[in-house]
Amino acid sequence: MSAAGNTRWDHRIAAAAAIVAEHLSPTPLVRIDLEGFGAPAYLKLETLQPTGSFKVRGALAAVAAGAAGGRTIVTASAGNHGLGVAYAATRLGARAVVVVPRTASPAKIDALRHLAIDLRLVGESYDDAEAAAHVIADDTGGRYVSAYTDPDVIAGQATVVREIAESLSGTARIVVPVGGGGLVSGTVLGAPDRFQVLGVEAAASRAVSASMAAGRIVEVPVSSTIADGLAGNIAPDTLAPSVLTAAAVGVLAADEPMIRRAVRTLALEHGTVTEGSGAVGVAAALNGDVPADLPTVFVITGRNIAPATLVSLLAA
Amino acid sequence: MSAAGNTRWDHRIAAAAAIVAEHLSPTPLVRIDLEGFGAPAYLKLETLQPTGSFKVRGALAAVAAGAAGGRTIVTASAGNHGLGVAYAATRLGARAVVVVPRTASPAKIDALRHLAIDLRLVGESYDDAEAAAHVIADDTGGRYVSAYTDPDVIAGQATVVREIAESLSGTARIVVPVGGGGLVSGTVLGAPDRFQVLGVEAAASRAVSASMAAGRIVEVPVSSTIADGLAGNIAPDTLAPSVLTAAAVGVLAADEPMIRRAVRTLALEHGTVTEGSGAVGVAAALNGDVPADLPTVFVITGRNIAPATLVSLLAA
Repeated sequence: MSAAGNTRWDHRIAAAAAIVAEHLSPTPLVRIDLEGFGAPAYLKLETLQPTGSFKVRGALAAVAAGAAGGRTIVTASAGNHGLGVAYAATRLGARAVVVVPRTASPAKIDALRHLAIDLRLVGESYDDAEAAAHVIADDTGGRYVSAYTDPDVIAGQATVVREIAESLSGTARIVVPVGGGGLVSGTVLGAPDRFQVLGVEAAASRAVSASMAAGRIVEVPVSSTIADGLAGNIAPDTLAPSVLTAAAVGVLAADEPMIRRAVRTLALEHGTVTEGSGAVGVAAALNGDVPADLPTVFVITGRNIAPATLVSLLAA
Repeated sequence: MSAAGNTRWDHRIAAAAAIVAEHLSPTPLVRIDLEGFGAPAYLKLETLQPTGSFKVRGALAAVAAGAAGGRTIVTASAGNHGLGVAYAATRLGARAVVVVPRTASPAKIDALRHLAIDLRLVGESYDDAEAAAHVIADDTGGRYVSAYTDPDVIAGQATVVREIAESLSGTARIVVPVGGGGLVSGTVLGAPDRFQVLGVEAAASRAVSASMAAGRIVEVPVSSTIADGLAGNIAPDTLAPSVLTAAAVGVLAADEPMIRRAVRTLALEHGTVTEGSGAVGVAAALNGDVPADLPTVFVITGRNIAPATLVSLLAA
């Protein structure tokens, strides 16, 4: 990032930090003994957010920025971002339209139905829902909020590493899951110089690292993964590849058996229920891929795993 | 408690707080929305202790007090107290003998085998193991440390409510599980006047409340319970009934279906893996038995549940 770019981000992150501090308590940073990992290890427990995931931070920042002009917020997500936008809209008294494909899981649709949002079921895929959300935003003068590359969302996600910096002194490595790259971008932009950032994708879905390697946004094959929150391709305007390339941030991959093992380990050894997406950093560490040369913080991004999936993993 | 009694406890609790602060980080206090509970609710997550349970607090206090005179620590426990004593002995460089009946679960015996303690398998029941531990303590000049009524253990457990008082202002109700009553006694003795304390037993094992009702230590029938850490009768010198009677502290009971539901709720709605014993307070609240007239802290005492048990609960 250029100095000018950083100044622009610093203002945005400061605004996000103010709104996040007003509505959310800092999440715990807990020291653990991580099996086979030779450096001090910490979990940043975003699983304890009221919506069950860190996404509420970016949602609060983006809804606050959008609603400041009286605009309706429009987004497409049946997952943690949708829950975050609903939470933020309720807290901030904003109007939010959340578009979800008719094919989304009934449990997720049901959870959204109970929230104070205008829920729309459109199309058969997320691409359909996202296209519909853009149309609704254009038609109504609303603000479309991307789950992973809206600048205010990224600024909101930067508050995770700001909180870590407040309770952890000295150098450290911050390991964050990478899907569309909103969290890792915010982490890079919000981290003090004494922190190194390391991203981890699901091996089944590597849109950000492939785009970094190609030097432009490219489409990748996406396989089924237990880290469903990280799966999918990224929009042509996605910021993460250039942010990570500029900061020389590496992105590892965690495969399915290791993610499953990490979910098990976090539940049975560390008392924390984690969705697959939240466990990829620990998965990479259990696989020996995270260097143990610095105190290391694993951002455990969310707890919203389907009960049957959790049971099948714990019973394995 | 008389003023003189409180002064004696205050010194002991101050010593315990110093050793606990040296070796353990404060555990998180997390605000939650608890289904159907009309007051602000918080979880005090002792599940995030390094040994997986609050028992390490009392163990540190008692091992420090005992080892100050160079004495060997002797106890009988295959559970969280045994793990706590092992942790404390390792951290404080003390020698500890832990006596366990040959009938204890192989998983628990295996966990203790990996720790720096002198593990002895004696007898067929906890009564046998406890009797053997007393003999070993007498023979070797060691200090027998009761899991629930050693005064230093109680002082160590008092550090839970001291931590809560540091991060929560105003009046509150502190809801704690009751087995032998070490934690609830420490909570009563360590709590500021602005806190009310409420105990919750497993309905299957009500030794402390029965002894309070009788005005003396009485034996009760004990049935099988998922809150196995709370199950059992109490020794004739147990302090809890008189401590609770003097402070007019009530003790509720949670039945098995409600404890199972609470373990499920804590895992699936709040991201926290809890053993049955740790969930009795939330169980009582889900059953409508905890008054919702004050901000309420539920002390979630531990995470050490057998994986198969957890799976069976979550799959229910």
